[in-house]
Amino acid sequence: MKDRIRLSDGGGGLDSRELVDQIASVLSNPVLSGLEDSAILDGVEGRVAFTTDGFVVKPTFFPGGDIGKLAVCGTLNDLVVMGARPKALSLSLIIEEGFAKKDLMRIVTSIKETAGDTPVVTGDTKVVEHGSADGIFVITAGVGVQLKGANPSASRLTEGDKLIVTGSVGRHGASIMANREELGFSSDLLSDVAYQGDMILPLFESLGADVKVCRDVTRGGMSAILSEFAHSSDVGIEVMEADIPVDPDVKGLCDALGLDPLTLACEGRSLIGVCPGRLDEALEILTGNPLGSGTCQIGEVVADHARMVHLRTIIGGARILEPPAGELLPRIC
Amino acid sequence: MKDRIRLSDGGGGLDSRELVDQIASVLSNPVLSGLEDSAILDGVEGRVAFTTDGFVVKPTFFPGGDIGKLAVCGTLNDLVVMGARPKALSLSLIIEEGFAKKDLMRIVTSIKETAGDTPVVTGDTKVVEHGSADGIFVITAGVGVQLKGANPSASRLTEGDKLIVTGSVGRHGASIMANREELGFSSDLLSDVAYQGDMILPLFESLGADVKVCRDVTRGGMSAILSEFAHSSDVGIEVMEADIPVDPDVKGLCDALGLDPLTLACEGRSLIGVCPGRLDEALEILTGNPLGSGTCQIGEVVADHARMVHLRTIIGGARILEPPAGELLPRIC
Repeated sequence: MKDRIRLSDGGGGLDSRELVDQIASVLSNPVLSGLEDSAILDGVEGRVAFTTDGFVVKPTFFPGGDIGKLAVCGTLNDLVVMGARPKALSLSLIIEEGFAKKDLMRIVTSIKETAGDTPVVTGDTKVVEHGSADGIFVITAGVGVQLKGANPSASRLTEGDKLIVTGSVGRHGASIMANREELGFSSDLLSDVAYQGDMILPLFESLGADVKVCRDVTRGGMSAILSEFAHSSDVGIEVMEADIPVDPDVKGLCDALGLDPLTLACEGRSLIGVCPGRLDEALEILTGNPLGSGTCQIGEVVADHARMVHLRTIIGGARILEPPAGELLPRIC
Repeated sequence: MKDRIRLSDGGGGLDSRELVDQIASVLSNPVLSGLEDSAILDGVEGRVAFTTDGFVVKPTFFPGGDIGKLAVCGTLNDLVVMGARPKALSLSLIIEEGFAKKDLMRIVTSIKETAGDTPVVTGDTKVVEHGSADGIFVITAGVGVQLKGANPSASRLTEGDKLIVTGSVGRHGASIMANREELGFSSDLLSDVAYQGDMILPLFESLGADVKVCRDVTRGGMSAILSEFAHSSDVGIEVMEADIPVDPDVKGLCDALGLDPLTLACEGRSLIGVCPGRLDEALEILTGNPLGSGTCQIGEVVADHARMVHLRTIIGGARILEPPAGELLPRIC
């Protein structure tokens, strides 16, 4: 039975050579040979950005994406939110014995498609016994080169800076939760997972260091990121609840499942802080990209309540937005 | 109970922030902040080497090392065998709920110690439910800069090139197998896992492109690598069995377990091909390092039998050394 992954496919012998060749033929590019121990990259010069992320999302395939697409977007987005143009990806797979080979190849194909111009230049494949992993884990690392002038950091916010989100929040997390078999729920809510480079890099090209901070919205959602911004920059943040876009279908699902959309990941969105004088320009650039059509300001950096995020509620009150605590949603990414 | 890893330690909220802070404080270095999405590296210029490896070794701790030491050595060695000086590492952890926190911190400490001067600059931590992984998986990626002149490749061997191994083979694989609980075996055979940069990089500095190929001996062992050399370079290889060093304790264990030491990983060893005129110089450099004190020639590239490796046996015969096939040893690294 060669339609399922066997332990020998990861053992280092002929079978694993064959599997690696099949994966490499899908990922095909001039740098990837699969035969050398490191890829050699030309043209990587300047301030080099380097990042990694492991992906364990459950289910492996979900409406709007799969673990491969998520792994590529997650790592490429971690480069672009630092103002870095992606140059190369690495791909490490940990596969459970018995995993369907067609599902593996579907994931690899999705990786190739999502990575677009960024080549997967080096990789590794391990197979563990049935029961020692849950299907497949995908770990990517990325190398990029930071654009001249770009210098975003969670610690660079100062009073008056404007906070922007690039669209409605919470969709990826809500989609994953709605598709967990154990919930017996049925939903066709699509994840928003997307590569954000074509939207974010032009912003850095135009605004340079006036992009104070940029962060794709992953685990912990907007709440976690805003709290981190306030702490790292030692500033107060004020956010208007009415200004935070949440789509009705996401809101409905969150209400049904008892989830807060502000704590949910949305891998197609970024939270950005810009100098006040560059707000209009930033909004114009971001809304000019289809992915950012829903971009809007949601708040600003204020002089008061350093290290705290205040949420002005729709009914006129205010509450402190705490970073999420306790058992969050496991395996959302 | 905070002595075991909980799902919330990977959820993106306060608990995971705390765990990441604890890991980061052990790995501490100026580039790693843990708070930005990518690390920014200065001083990476030239031909950049990039590699990744996932580690699933079982048991997690073994005589002579642990999964953390193995993960760092594996990735750093993949850089140095390409003639690249390591610049930075990434670290991705996938941890099973319930894993002992002290074991995690012991692994992180081992990573820090093994990495030495190479900083771990970026990382990621995921926690999966009990039963969805087996303890811990460690995935590293590495960035380095290739030394001027270095240009090793499995496809560069030509007739007359000499083949060298940097010491006795098979020890890591034998050690891991001897320590599998299910075998009911007891052995204090130490793994040979080691960082090889201090031994290998001086060789590239002196011989440059006359180091035709260099490969650390991982999954599949010497048999897999020699076979790959012969295929990639389209040459014949002749190896003298009597010249291949195998320590008596490794040989004894292999005999007892029915293993072939030539198919076993030994992460502290490399297999190297050099131009014939540089053999003596190579031996001198390699034996001058404590890790390479057992370096010796084991064979050479010949004009006949292209793509085949012939092993001249001790009793005077010859057999074809095939790459290992079928179910090899799972989770040796």
